Amino acid sequence: MKKRIVIALGGNALGNTPEEQMEAVRVTALSIVDLLEEGYEIAIAHGNGPQVGMIHLAFEAAHASEAQTPAMPFPECGAMSQGYIGYHLQNAIINEMRKRDIHQDVVTVVTEVQVDPQDPAFLEPTKPIGSFCSKADAEQLTALKGYVMKEDAGRGYRRVVPSPKPVRIVGIGAIESILASGHVVIAGGGGGIPVIAEGPTRQLKGVAAVIDKDFTSAKLAEELCADAFLILTAVDQVAIHFGKSDEKWLDHLTLEEARAYINAGEFAKGSMLPKVEAAMAYAASGPGRRALITSLQKAKEALSGHTGTWISE
Amino acid sequence: MKKRIVIALGGNALGNTPEEQMEAVRVTALSIVDLLEEGYEIAIAHGNGPQVGMIHLAFEAAHASEAQTPAMPFPECGAMSQGYIGYHLQNAIINEMRKRDIHQDVVTVVTEVQVDPQDPAFLEPTKPIGSFCSKADAEQLTALKGYVMKEDAGRGYRRVVPSPKPVRIVGIGAIESILASGHVVIAGGGGGIPVIAEGPTRQLKGVAAVIDKDFTSAKLAEELCADAFLILTAVDQVAIHFGKSDEKWLDHLTLEEARAYINAGEFAKGSMLPKVEAAMAYAASGPGRRALITSLQKAKEALSGHTGTWISE
Repeated sequence: MKKRIVIALGGNALGNTPEEQMEAVRVTALSIVDLLEEGYEIAIAHGNGPQVGMIHLAFEAAHASEAQTPAMPFPECGAMSQGYIGYHLQNAIINEMRKRDIHQDVVTVVTEVQVDPQDPAFLEPTKPIGSFCSKADAEQLTALKGYVMKEDAGRGYRRVVPSPKPVRIVGIGAIESILASGHVVIAGGGGGIPVIAEGPTRQLKGVAAVIDKDFTSAKLAEELCADAFLILTAVDQVAIHFGKSDEKWLDHLTLEEARAYINAGEFAKGSMLPKVEAAMAYAASGPGRRALITSLQKAKEALSGHTGTWISE
Repeated sequence: MKKRIVIALGGNALGNTPEEQMEAVRVTALSIVDLLEEGYEIAIAHGNGPQVGMIHLAFEAAHASEAQTPAMPFPECGAMSQGYIGYHLQNAIINEMRKRDIHQDVVTVVTEVQVDPQDPAFLEPTKPIGSFCSKADAEQLTALKGYVMKEDAGRGYRRVVPSPKPVRIVGIGAIESILASGHVVIAGGGGGIPVIAEGPTRQLKGVAAVIDKDFTSAKLAEELCADAFLILTAVDQVAIHFGKSDEKWLDHLTLEEARAYINAGEFAKGSMLPKVEAAMAYAASGPGRRALITSLQKAKEALSGHTGTWISE
């Protein structure tokens, strides 16, 4: 039996413009195909912050311009970002595989992810999206469209949306079948298109929200019963006392240790904290489940136990 | 064994704005789920003309505006349109299935489609994309970016791109595995993201082109060994002497008859002609292969032989 891994790719694995992204995914593909050569079954999830921001901004600007293209809701912008990033990422992996004479398919699945409308995140939107505006414009947007607008670091007002936790990956059976047939799958891009289930027949409906891609990746790993869940980021290991004289890089963290470090404020919010929390969520989801935080470049080495930070029960 | 069908959805199955599209796919989903209830395995392809046009235009306008978002190449716009349309279409089908208590997955696969750089279409680009401009601007775009610009019906100049034939669906193994596992798959949206294979390792590279969605759908049906290939359009059957007093609706067309009618100019270019040609391509691809041209609403009836136009050898 092949070992199955789910990989969460960080923002550094992608780029901002189409040209940057195409170059970034080329480098990312080298490490991914190294893992394929080790014999792993691979599912990949990735962020979309800068990309969905760009798409959303382009549609805002074009809607207000002479072009008058339609206003584009946020979930639809997320769906577009999955197509855009998925195309580049799958193409780069396919091309690297071809260089090494490996013949499996790599496909991107447009993924909806169910969230709970009762998630407390809906009461307190925190994720800024779209462009800055004046206080007057912000008040008008709230009145007209019901947007929650927040002042952002003196730069003006911006729309904020909730960041709920993922509950269920829609389409997981199809994603599973791709993996089980020996192909690589890219799914849950940008944390997935957030949907809620409404009414007696649980009708799925897109909502303006951003699901953290690390949590969605953890959920994907959980639902795919992965042998390991890898969160790839800019550093090789997780550190405590980060940037201080007594900085210490960690080989392993139990859930208990991780919780204690979180309570001590060791991990930066919006940076290492969600990664450690997502790794913990996966490790806590079943017996023997292990998560690994490391860099893209060290992923292969870390899987053989030579670096990275493993998180387990 | 379940019968497998590949469906090509026409532009009338989608809409122009996000709101229109969401409503259009809701209606489309009714007929699709009717076919699911008949026990068919279903793969769906669809057009993206208005949608990729809108996305391309939005990025052109936003790039030229204060927002200064990056210029977006045409293949990337196509990838975005697959995410955008796929999300709406899969969501609508899932929701209709839930109303009828059917539990299969429906996923969209971001699909690259290989074309031949030697395809004669590359010598004579015909598909207009993007917005109109003056002769002077057109000449500058040709000089700066190598675009082929053509005068369009007195409305100014527009970029034209080639419309090559599909050679191969990239990722067909993964698409097959989704179907074989009992799920519905949406693939080859907008005719697919056109790529050419370059160099000794056949590196796939996106090209600015538009592959006719009916031909891509036929190729998909061929590679998936479908039991039937359905082209769904605005009319229930193909007609000869269309719109004339001796108009005749056809129940069946052999390849020979179809060729004769094409030579007699019976089918409108850019409308029924590519559909008949795509149906013929599928029927000619192997023994016993049959294609069906009918409307979305009559698809179920037509599959049981009560309406539609069947094309076979």
